[in-house]
Amino acid sequence: MPLESSLHARLTATLGDRLSTTAAICTAPGGGEGLRDSAPPDAVAFPRTTDEVAAIAVACAAARTPIIPFGTGTSLEGHVQALHGGVCIDLSAMDRIIAVNAADLDCRVEAGVTREALNLHLRDQGLFFPLDPGANASLGGMAATRASGTNAVRYGTMKDVVLGLTVVTPAGDVIRTGGRARKSSAGYDLTRLYIGSEGTLGIITEVQLRLFGIPECVLAATVQFPALAAAVETVIAVMQSGAGPARIELLDALQMQACIAWSGLSGLAALPTLFLEFHGGPAAVAEQAATVRALAAEFGGTAFAEAATTEARTALWKARHSAYHAARGLAPGKDSLTTDACVPISRLADCITACAAAATRLGLTAPIVGHVGDGNFHMLVLFDPADAGERARAEALATEVAVQALAHGGTITGEHGIGMHKLDAMRDEHDAGALGAMRAIKAALDPLGIMNPGKTVPAA
Amino acid sequence: MPLESSLHARLTATLGDRLSTTAAICTAPGGGEGLRDSAPPDAVAFPRTTDEVAAIAVACAAARTPIIPFGTGTSLEGHVQALHGGVCIDLSAMDRIIAVNAADLDCRVEAGVTREALNLHLRDQGLFFPLDPGANASLGGMAATRASGTNAVRYGTMKDVVLGLTVVTPAGDVIRTGGRARKSSAGYDLTRLYIGSEGTLGIITEVQLRLFGIPECVLAATVQFPALAAAVETVIAVMQSGAGPARIELLDALQMQACIAWSGLSGLAALPTLFLEFHGGPAAVAEQAATVRALAAEFGGTAFAEAATTEARTALWKARHSAYHAARGLAPGKDSLTTDACVPISRLADCITACAAAATRLGLTAPIVGHVGDGNFHMLVLFDPADAGERARAEALATEVAVQALAHGGTITGEHGIGMHKLDAMRDEHDAGALGAMRAIKAALDPLGIMNPGKTVPAA
Repeated sequence: MPLESSLHARLTATLGDRLSTTAAICTAPGGGEGLRDSAPPDAVAFPRTTDEVAAIAVACAAARTPIIPFGTGTSLEGHVQALHGGVCIDLSAMDRIIAVNAADLDCRVEAGVTREALNLHLRDQGLFFPLDPGANASLGGMAATRASGTNAVRYGTMKDVVLGLTVVTPAGDVIRTGGRARKSSAGYDLTRLYIGSEGTLGIITEVQLRLFGIPECVLAATVQFPALAAAVETVIAVMQSGAGPARIELLDALQMQACIAWSGLSGLAALPTLFLEFHGGPAAVAEQAATVRALAAEFGGTAFAEAATTEARTALWKARHSAYHAARGLAPGKDSLTTDACVPISRLADCITACAAAATRLGLTAPIVGHVGDGNFHMLVLFDPADAGERARAEALATEVAVQALAHGGTITGEHGIGMHKLDAMRDEHDAGALGAMRAIKAALDPLGIMNPGKTVPAA
Repeated sequence: MPLESSLHARLTATLGDRLSTTAAICTAPGGGEGLRDSAPPDAVAFPRTTDEVAAIAVACAAARTPIIPFGTGTSLEGHVQALHGGVCIDLSAMDRIIAVNAADLDCRVEAGVTREALNLHLRDQGLFFPLDPGANASLGGMAATRASGTNAVRYGTMKDVVLGLTVVTPAGDVIRTGGRARKSSAGYDLTRLYIGSEGTLGIITEVQLRLFGIPECVLAATVQFPALAAAVETVIAVMQSGAGPARIELLDALQMQACIAWSGLSGLAALPTLFLEFHGGPAAVAEQAATVRALAAEFGGTAFAEAATTEARTALWKARHSAYHAARGLAPGKDSLTTDACVPISRLADCITACAAAATRLGLTAPIVGHVGDGNFHMLVLFDPADAGERARAEALATEVAVQALAHGGTITGEHGIGMHKLDAMRDEHDAGALGAMRAIKAALDPLGIMNPGKTVPAA
């Protein structure tokens, strides 16, 4: 649908040729990395400043035109689909690292800075930003989706590491939330409200982040188990022990088979496996590794192996991060979707077993990786996009995983968010009162309903 | 003001003799531990269940009567003053520990359970709840005020350890936020919105909390410095090192003088002092202590002393927790108020120096304790309640501390909240857009304006 002409004129006046309405560019941000739906926006804006974002919001509000904020398009639940057309605000040109404060272990970045760009910038100062959702996502997008990843078990999720935000409201006001203090009790926690709001309340343009000193010592290790339940029992014992791993990742036998085929991983068998990493001083790291090794042995863990060199450690995590490609390698040419259950860890083995049984019942290949210290696991469900029946079964499995997550006392999404795909499941997770409160907040902060419409909060 | 008669009848029908309108009981919750203002409610209700709280809310909403939730009355900013009369809901009878899940390191408690009662209950299971704001506060109150305390530097604040809540809305709906999963991206973060909302959006009746395994090894230590700035420089280096203390507390020379007089503390001089605690395996704890000792020495730290026995450690923290009483012991008969600045740690020494200079200028005695790993410090400002001029100067100092906190890039309150005393300072901390968003949320979730009116968010 072409952009309304007066809106087009206003946006062009602000942005010049950084407003695009050509079909190719408009299609690009439609997908994200999830299912291949495509609802392109009518135009894509490439602002360079918060003030330009504010001007876009003012113009869109005047025209009652939807706004869809866009980072790197690595979201998985159709977050960036322009369901009702409108203007996609691509924040990738807002990629300045505004300030790094080493003494305070914090920094301020524009929303388009990616986590890899930030870490590259920080490396010489002995600092790093730990959160690692796999994709080289933008930090604004990670805030907007409450992302986490492999080392959330130690460093938390975006809700824990964001100190403050700059947000453009749908009316074009620029507001600052939070600040530079490590903690504050000064009023409502607007920062946490915008984190995870998926662009439905405003556009995040700057993020104040906590940073961490690069650990003196980093040690990775793997340990294998005869059965998945034994791996999970080990994780429970590790978490209770306070051994405090920075990463504790589970790969099921099928995912290990895929990773061995894809990445080598010599010495490892296609068995349920934990990938671990420890951060700290050398004595602490050695002590943690010994604790985990002993606990794993109690539950039948075998082949506990430390990645003794930096190269070995890098290879290990490269293999873990290639799990997605490795899994797709199990069935070349097939497409995939990813589930995201997160449950209390005591229920994790049962939940995974139930989900794996559902995959078998539906005749689907669906290897599993898990941020198991958090009780979070993903199934990578493979399906033939040309086979409508198989896609329907893949979607049925995703629905079943959400059902099982709730049946096991958990949440339908640990870190990927709601977007457009999990709106129905939101009704199962939250009671009427909680959904009512979310709708009231949406109406209060986006009274025109122009911010990323059709996402996050299901209609009444 | 007497309660409207039909409201009185409805509440009595629900609560029987657990509704009180006698003056003595109504005055009791008026104070809190802060300034001795007194605006008593018209009645105090003592519900035993969430359903009873909901019934009270329905009745109060029908009568347009204010509701003031009350935990243990240890808040410091007049949070529980019934500025417009109304019904105080005292949650102390809701003191059941509903469930403890050792494998998942979580529990669910009613809002009236105190942190000490919870820890007593947990002790035999090898678990503990770390947050320690000093007072034996209720966990519902700690959630409502976003409390933290001495070990937030490692374990975070209430925003970090609360997994979910049961909240009664001002319309009497019962909603559940969050859940038992360690993380979730399922919609707006209602949990974090109610945390720190100080009873202005709803009544918290249950809290789902993260727990932690009691560390294998706990080591406390003290180290003294010739000047406050050197102590702060040490803390900056410790935080960058990743040595990860569980506690790192600063007491200035005056506070040390008071604590030595009050608690003994043999071997320590009236110098700026850090009180530290390390949690972990024996090797990790020894390594952390050695790291801190070496860093402290670089900045002129002396008399690094480990509390070798449990008794010595207990005595140390008892002295720290008696800082309030010790400080008041400097001027028996005087009253006190407590400030709560929290700034980036690189600005902490300058901010403390500026605040101490202001105290001197105003002729006030105001020793300082700080949760210094978080950049948070408190001045205990002593004043004669019978001397209106001195009270005015004490309040002027509190205002100046807030001004200095903002001038040094921080927040007017790290952990005590806004209540009624810091409403003006809220306007200085937050921009018009952020205050507007808070007001919009308040209006959306409490449209009748009956929840703890006159607190937290300043009027437009």
